[in-house]
Amino acid sequence: MDEQNLMHIEGRNPVWEALRAGRPIHKIIVSKSARGAVKEILNLARANNIPIQEVDGARIQALSESHASQGIIAIAAVKEYVELDDILGIPEKRNEDPFFVVLDGIQDPQNLGTIIRTAEAAGVHGLIVGKHRSAGLTDAVGKASAGAVEYLPVARVTNIPQALDILKQKGIWIVGADAEGDSLYLHPKSVQGAVALVIGSEGAGMGRLVKEKCDFLLSLPMRGNVQSLNASAAAAVFIYEILRQR
Amino acid sequence: MDEQNLMHIEGRNPVWEALRAGRPIHKIIVSKSARGAVKEILNLARANNIPIQEVDGARIQALSESHASQGIIAIAAVKEYVELDDILGIPEKRNEDPFFVVLDGIQDPQNLGTIIRTAEAAGVHGLIVGKHRSAGLTDAVGKASAGAVEYLPVARVTNIPQALDILKQKGIWIVGADAEGDSLYLHPKSVQGAVALVIGSEGAGMGRLVKEKCDFLLSLPMRGNVQSLNASAAAAVFIYEILRQR
Repeated sequence: MDEQNLMHIEGRNPVWEALRAGRPIHKIIVSKSARGAVKEILNLARANNIPIQEVDGARIQALSESHASQGIIAIAAVKEYVELDDILGIPEKRNEDPFFVVLDGIQDPQNLGTIIRTAEAAGVHGLIVGKHRSAGLTDAVGKASAGAVEYLPVARVTNIPQALDILKQKGIWIVGADAEGDSLYLHPKSVQGAVALVIGSEGAGMGRLVKEKCDFLLSLPMRGNVQSLNASAAAAVFIYEILRQR
Repeated sequence: MDEQNLMHIEGRNPVWEALRAGRPIHKIIVSKSARGAVKEILNLARANNIPIQEVDGARIQALSESHASQGIIAIAAVKEYVELDDILGIPEKRNEDPFFVVLDGIQDPQNLGTIIRTAEAAGVHGLIVGKHRSAGLTDAVGKASAGAVEYLPVARVTNIPQALDILKQKGIWIVGADAEGDSLYLHPKSVQGAVALVIGSEGAGMGRLVKEKCDFLLSLPMRGNVQSLNASAAAAVFIYEILRQR
């Protein structure tokens, strides 16, 4: 295997989810002291013929990139992006109305991972992210997603407005989360049926060209002094309101 | 002022919010290069007779605790907790049905800050946290809250089940977010009226005694492979569903 295409998956839950999802894993490194606590993980690894390397505590700490390995690291292929077309075919296979999430410029790995976790939990069919100004699918993202990145297909596109045009041609409504939009709760119909939810960046929101492609701009009511939510919190409220409407 | 009771508020947005909220600030330290970009903040500080100290870039980096000061640091009194009684009086003053959030063991400062931001934005009247196994109101929490910690009163109690008994005596329904509860969307009436929402810790959820005090245990539907959301994402969905029902 080419070193460049390898990455660490660190921590018990992320390694467990990677194994369960059948992600190709090169080997698993475990500290002697953690061995007992991760027995189930190691059994699953053995059942899949994945080599297990035992090291002492100091060694695993030296190897760990996250410094939160919990005594276990999987060396895996870098999580691969899928093509937009691959994602577009998923709703039909599941016999469901399309439900996509589009991220325009989310740069914080913690936010990206949390959004991936929420989207996967809510049954979103796929995530679409831009190539520029966006966090990649790093180990930090995987960890923040609690392993959900293993299950949710992510397509990376060069041009988000163009991708939205393709979605629109498929009859999918584009719903943008935007502070200047009407309240989400005033327009329940706009989030029913085939929907792609667009979430903008932490600071600046959606880009102008992206915003212009939206069929609806919807906001969350703000009743306090702060005038916006964290991007991953806002995404969670939107995603679950769309799920509720289904 | 006693050094022990001083803390840093770092970054443009947090310092701005602290000033706007009228939080007692000892002095503001600004780097020469940031001066132009934070003119509005400095004007507000001057209007409030707060001393401003100008330093060079290297000095502010050395002083910064977060290493994300954006060239401005306010030295302020440690954010103070309020008494449970203070919080209980707020809904009546605002002539609104009580809406509280209770956190049982949230330890991650990022999650605590994000929940404070969401709660403040949604008009929650106050937050109740336990003294043990909980993140304190540190600068990291303030930063993650985007300044919302300045506006949302937080009461710290020794015994959460006892605090819930006091809320119940006031006719407030206790709604616990729990994976084993019924779907939130099946019982809309349970989140109407006077409500305290209880969110458990990131790993273990609510404690047993806390759970027993809940009038309703409600969950979010899970449609994917991961079986839970990030605590701050789950809190956002619950908080906004309660707001929607009002």
